[in-house]
Amino acid sequence: MIKAFPSLLIDISKCEQNIAFMAQKATKAKVLFRPHFKTHQSKAVGELFRKHGITQITVSSVPMAEYFADAGWNDITIAFPLIPQMDQRVNALAKTITLNVTFSSPKNLMASIHSIDEHVGVFIEVDVGHSRSGVAVGNTRELALMVNLISSIPNMVFKGFLTHAGHSYSARGRDEVEKLHTEALSKLAKLRSFWVDQFPDLTISYGDTPTCSVSDEFWGISEIRPGNFVFYDVMQSQIGSCSTSQVAVALICPVVDVLPVQQKLIIHGGAVHLSKDRVVIDGADCYGFVCRFDGRRWSNPVPNAMVTALSQEHGVISYSGNALNGIKPGDLLAILPVHSCLTVDCMGQMFDSQGNVYDVLPKTIR
Amino acid sequence: MIKAFPSLLIDISKCEQNIAFMAQKATKAKVLFRPHFKTHQSKAVGELFRKHGITQITVSSVPMAEYFADAGWNDITIAFPLIPQMDQRVNALAKTITLNVTFSSPKNLMASIHSIDEHVGVFIEVDVGHSRSGVAVGNTRELALMVNLISSIPNMVFKGFLTHAGHSYSARGRDEVEKLHTEALSKLAKLRSFWVDQFPDLTISYGDTPTCSVSDEFWGISEIRPGNFVFYDVMQSQIGSCSTSQVAVALICPVVDVLPVQQKLIIHGGAVHLSKDRVVIDGADCYGFVCRFDGRRWSNPVPNAMVTALSQEHGVISYSGNALNGIKPGDLLAILPVHSCLTVDCMGQMFDSQGNVYDVLPKTIR
Repeated sequence: MIKAFPSLLIDISKCEQNIAFMAQKATKAKVLFRPHFKTHQSKAVGELFRKHGITQITVSSVPMAEYFADAGWNDITIAFPLIPQMDQRVNALAKTITLNVTFSSPKNLMASIHSIDEHVGVFIEVDVGHSRSGVAVGNTRELALMVNLISSIPNMVFKGFLTHAGHSYSARGRDEVEKLHTEALSKLAKLRSFWVDQFPDLTISYGDTPTCSVSDEFWGISEIRPGNFVFYDVMQSQIGSCSTSQVAVALICPVVDVLPVQQKLIIHGGAVHLSKDRVVIDGADCYGFVCRFDGRRWSNPVPNAMVTALSQEHGVISYSGNALNGIKPGDLLAILPVHSCLTVDCMGQMFDSQGNVYDVLPKTIR
Repeated sequence: MIKAFPSLLIDISKCEQNIAFMAQKATKAKVLFRPHFKTHQSKAVGELFRKHGITQITVSSVPMAEYFADAGWNDITIAFPLIPQMDQRVNALAKTITLNVTFSSPKNLMASIHSIDEHVGVFIEVDVGHSRSGVAVGNTRELALMVNLISSIPNMVFKGFLTHAGHSYSARGRDEVEKLHTEALSKLAKLRSFWVDQFPDLTISYGDTPTCSVSDEFWGISEIRPGNFVFYDVMQSQIGSCSTSQVAVALICPVVDVLPVQQKLIIHGGAVHLSKDRVVIDGADCYGFVCRFDGRRWSNPVPNAMVTALSQEHGVISYSGNALNGIKPGDLLAILPVHSCLTVDCMGQMFDSQGNVYDVLPKTIR
């Protein structure tokens, strides 16, 4: 069934459950669900969302927008600040689909505004605490400057404000996530109330996987854009967004060598497969959880075992106890990735247990 | 010239100098130069080595061996322990080229030995201090077991011992590299003297970029297999293997936003481009050095500036002083990667300043 090793396997049933969970939550909270497709980057996985009525999506780059437009998605928000180098590709794409672009500051807006001549919706990115990019949510002067500038351009429609509460990735436990989520909602509510008279259709676009997974409350929000939830991963399980049983992708790795004295296993599965993203667990770097694999499905993670080092092709599993006794070279293990978005990007294609291929946006057309 | 952003640019002149430097060193030390092609993974970059008389190469996976065999390389060592899943591809490849495979333990050898039925050369991986994989160099009993087993198989020729002194990556400064290199040579000399009477043509295969860059002394070694030196990177400059002026690849990134108050720049260049490998400099995570870029060539690194955070598409540059004053959204900066092997793997293709494309082993045929 699996022909290439290592191979990234999707558990389609878990993946569909993750999609259904988030779609139902959005329906219940009366917010639009505009999932971020940057995690799977896959036309084939995108098709799984259509069953749940999804017609509007989010992406993180212009090539990713082109790729999904080619698969029939015709309402796309690029939730990454526009750069001048992409102007002509944005114009070409905006001719064919409903396209929203994002700007993160007056300077960033000024750099591109005059070379976009097709009809686009425009979001202003605001910062609610992540401190990566976007105008501080309370900086009314800069926001007004941008809103006025956008409103003065005939081919641009000001859509609203977009934020990524990415500081939720530093939270540990559902209480911490809920706390920063409530703070973010409160800031966005003030922003909304300031602008809603002038723009009655104002969109407040919000949503990272931790807050959208943990909370059921999206007061004042128009749409949510989580992405990672489609697969989840070890990092999300550490944050408290999911249990490890919800993780829907695993890297199937052949065991290369067994070192019982050192309580280590060497696997073929390295930094070019899993990525070097990591979480720290009990003071040690963790690059993945270790599951047994029966050829179709993986087990719950083996206790007291994790991937503790990666080089280009090698992974090192360290364990204690006897849960991995009996493993021998050539056996297959399933590794739950720390950061599924990056593992998908590293692998470039995925498979399901039937052997069906799930393509990923090729590197060479980015 | 550059059409895609971010784009991985090769400085061909630096790259050729790096190749010439290592080829001349090998000639002078009278060791065979069998460069590792896992860093560039590129047929087009591989061609640059032919000018220096290179005809024998090293790779880290069976698909990589197939890829380079397809480009006419007909003497290849796979310096990664063979796994049973790859047996048939190894047999097929061994029909067409001179192929050496590697085993790292008696168990690993036993798992595959009987399903390889074509003529292959066989290396035993020994561990000289890296503690990743391979038989401890002093474990004569296990080595003898493996040598005898290999010698009993008619289609296998025992070639010798192969090691990767990867603990050199933890060294800081040329003295530390020289010290562990001398220790490794001493261990390998004992190994050689034990086996050379029985195997007069015994090959001792050695070589990582730090030790091969720093030392001119390879006493008792038959061949060296460095790979990273072709491009070098920030990590190698921190180890002391190279100066930053020798780094031959840079990620060309558009500036997305400028945050002068925070002394930060946001670039389009994230974990899917650079990889999340990092070095720690003065207690801070560093994901790349920052250079100005004139459209063809990059400057020396800007002092007191580095990439300090990466998310999927975003990079955050932190700086002090005024060296990055005047930068605006849409300007291009060149980022020297921390780990060029992983950056190449993330990017999937490279360009030179003439716009020529340098292909990389596609993810979908691995």
